[in-house]
Amino acid sequence: MNKKIMLNESDIPRQWYNITADMPNKPLPPLHPGTKQPVGPQDLAPLFPMELIKQEVSTERYIEIPDEIIEIYKMWRPSPLYRADKFEKLLDAPVKIYYKYEGVSPSGSHKPNTAVAQAYYNKKEGVKRIATETGAGQWGTALSFACAQFGLECDVYMVRISYDQKPYRKVMMNTFGANVYASPSNRTQAGRNILEQDPNSPGSLGIAISEAIEIAAQDPDTKYSLGSVLNHVLMHQTIIGQEAEKQMEYAGDFPDIIIAPLGGGSNFAGISFPFLKHKLTNGTKLRCIAVEPASCPKLTRGKFMYDFGDTAGYTPLLPMYTLGHNFKPAAIHAGGLRYHGASVLCSQLLKDGLIEAQAIQQLECFEAGVAFTKAEGIIPAPEATHGIAQVIREARRAKEEGTQKTILFNLCGHGLVDMQAYQDYFDGKLHDHSFSDEELQADLPNIAALQP
Amino acid sequence: MNKKIMLNESDIPRQWYNITADMPNKPLPPLHPGTKQPVGPQDLAPLFPMELIKQEVSTERYIEIPDEIIEIYKMWRPSPLYRADKFEKLLDAPVKIYYKYEGVSPSGSHKPNTAVAQAYYNKKEGVKRIATETGAGQWGTALSFACAQFGLECDVYMVRISYDQKPYRKVMMNTFGANVYASPSNRTQAGRNILEQDPNSPGSLGIAISEAIEIAAQDPDTKYSLGSVLNHVLMHQTIIGQEAEKQMEYAGDFPDIIIAPLGGGSNFAGISFPFLKHKLTNGTKLRCIAVEPASCPKLTRGKFMYDFGDTAGYTPLLPMYTLGHNFKPAAIHAGGLRYHGASVLCSQLLKDGLIEAQAIQQLECFEAGVAFTKAEGIIPAPEATHGIAQVIREARRAKEEGTQKTILFNLCGHGLVDMQAYQDYFDGKLHDHSFSDEELQADLPNIAALQP
Repeated sequence: MNKKIMLNESDIPRQWYNITADMPNKPLPPLHPGTKQPVGPQDLAPLFPMELIKQEVSTERYIEIPDEIIEIYKMWRPSPLYRADKFEKLLDAPVKIYYKYEGVSPSGSHKPNTAVAQAYYNKKEGVKRIATETGAGQWGTALSFACAQFGLECDVYMVRISYDQKPYRKVMMNTFGANVYASPSNRTQAGRNILEQDPNSPGSLGIAISEAIEIAAQDPDTKYSLGSVLNHVLMHQTIIGQEAEKQMEYAGDFPDIIIAPLGGGSNFAGISFPFLKHKLTNGTKLRCIAVEPASCPKLTRGKFMYDFGDTAGYTPLLPMYTLGHNFKPAAIHAGGLRYHGASVLCSQLLKDGLIEAQAIQQLECFEAGVAFTKAEGIIPAPEATHGIAQVIREARRAKEEGTQKTILFNLCGHGLVDMQAYQDYFDGKLHDHSFSDEELQADLPNIAALQP
Repeated sequence: MNKKIMLNESDIPRQWYNITADMPNKPLPPLHPGTKQPVGPQDLAPLFPMELIKQEVSTERYIEIPDEIIEIYKMWRPSPLYRADKFEKLLDAPVKIYYKYEGVSPSGSHKPNTAVAQAYYNKKEGVKRIATETGAGQWGTALSFACAQFGLECDVYMVRISYDQKPYRKVMMNTFGANVYASPSNRTQAGRNILEQDPNSPGSLGIAISEAIEIAAQDPDTKYSLGSVLNHVLMHQTIIGQEAEKQMEYAGDFPDIIIAPLGGGSNFAGISFPFLKHKLTNGTKLRCIAVEPASCPKLTRGKFMYDFGDTAGYTPLLPMYTLGHNFKPAAIHAGGLRYHGASVLCSQLLKDGLIEAQAIQQLECFEAGVAFTKAEGIIPAPEATHGIAQVIREARRAKEEGTQKTILFNLCGHGLVDMQAYQDYFDGKLHDHSFSDEELQADLPNIAALQP
């Protein structure tokens, strides 16, 4: 039996899949916070190149991938699909488990799939510099790599607590040639406002987004780039699922269940949307489960409402499951999942009952990650362990019910630059955390005021 | 054009190549330090399983790889061969550059190729636990992974300075289930002797080897395992070069020059020996260049003599290029290259003029590593940057001479767990270091006394 199902470079998909075309209820439009009217391309033009704005609002089912992007994808794509035979043996349940492994990319996660595309369109439209935020560092590393490929400058605003706790990530970005600033910084008004209130602020993704947007809005040579949440970002990630579909076909299989962690939604969308297409267009039976940390439970305990994507309120209002743009998640190690909202596309699909969501505590996730490492030899990123924990839950359920299941999950990245998280887990320093209903509702008045 | 040349799992070589069969001058035998007579299998039996001892002294050209080992190799093999087109563009020289990338393995380097084989034979012969040493941590991680696959216990003696400086490596080993001890430790006589003289000893590979051997020699359930230097270890690595040969064939090319760093010799042997076979048996024109750090220059400035492999003098005497078993290399970041001796096979080939050696200072290596990262997207391990620096030298020479060259090098591992090294480089904390002739000769009387 083959352990890996590999494809050739000629099998790299030539189109991104836009799920908007097949959704029964189209996503609601982003709104201008002042007028509460849908934002137009001209509102976004200071921040994004026009081609990405077009992709953001496109309803075309497929969008061609330029050759220049394909050439860079070839550096690591197609990524392998593994049969988790050793992990299956450990679980001893009636399940076949496959995982798509995105850790083979230059930055070690799925993020370069969109970083390369975004850098390409910026370069093509004459942009000199891209500003962005990063939490745990996966996105900042990916964009740093992509900018190096196209000769673009890259400024990364890195959440202060991660900047201090994950020095290796910062060095990786520097090695690719990027500038990295701890956020909140005194380079922006948004940062200075926060530092005035709290000089020792540990920062947050929401704050770092505000800083990067502010820089981009002020400098005509600089644009802004986001690593998740937006429609075009999720669409770029669909090459993962399209490859996986072909690989599953070669394996003679089709998943009953697809599992992926959800921070903003790009990893989940990447693996699941191309399979969901069959459910949306042909009624194919398929469960897609987004897994979030119990300490940041926007999908399972948040509200579907219009909210800002950032703390300062620079972004348009987006219709999404949210905990409020001022929500402060617990300080878990899965930094990529510590975001208050979910992408518009994933939120609408969840609202319509087309996908499911589960919240899991971090101790269960790390236990799953260690078991997986011993069996399969790959140390998963803390974010990725959330998907693995859910795989174990589904395997146990299949065993209890005595049903055969085929599970596919996206191993979105390795944890080699996050080993402090595992050390803390082994040292007993990690704890589970649940918010009370009162705590989760504290920021709701802010959100309610934003509704159209 | 394809960026990567990939093989199928069915292309994984089914045999290891034993260069001893084709060497014009066979390697001299290892000697018992007391009798100065060749050691026999019974001398080594307390330390190694019999099958590995047989492989160590075999003169068969090929040795079959058991199916159980192939099944584990499939987790990451065949590894990709890349055309370094972006790096070529940067160098602007008349060279075609290919690199075999071993960083795709579970531990991020070529080391699992032999770790899996050694764990397999130990398991098969009823061993319960393997003790080993590790410097920078690549080898310890690889053996930890391999032991997890076979349900063996694994005790790793990690050089103290690396134990303190590279905490992520320790956690990786723990995650695979291994026990990691800082060396010198008070668990062995060898360790206690050193600590008595110097309670703050930073340790060395030679000391850590002594500790692991001592543990293995005393416990019938425990054997010892070495990650480089020995004949069977080098032989296991020849799957790298055998795959690369097939991949170069698919590319329609054959190398003029093969380059790899040399610490003990397994990485260099792995990529070069299957190609050297053509030179040894058909006279094919080929330069194979082993690259060492200028701060540990055994190949370029050491002596070809009998010497111990470890500090305490527990190993047999090996005929090799050495700086003396008490030599203390400068504290460079390429920990895997900080070893006083070179493998018997590589030493004999160098002595016979069949391979070449170059020494390079670390600043030139890191400069090469950063340039390579920006072009090719992979951050090389500090060890691997030595090979890249030599590739640049050869490219410049080809340009000066106006000759076309095809260069193949082994990118033996990624540097994601060594980012502190890059940080120190960017911070200007790294310096070049050369030993004077007097310093290099200080340990020679010790070696001279060991000659038969």
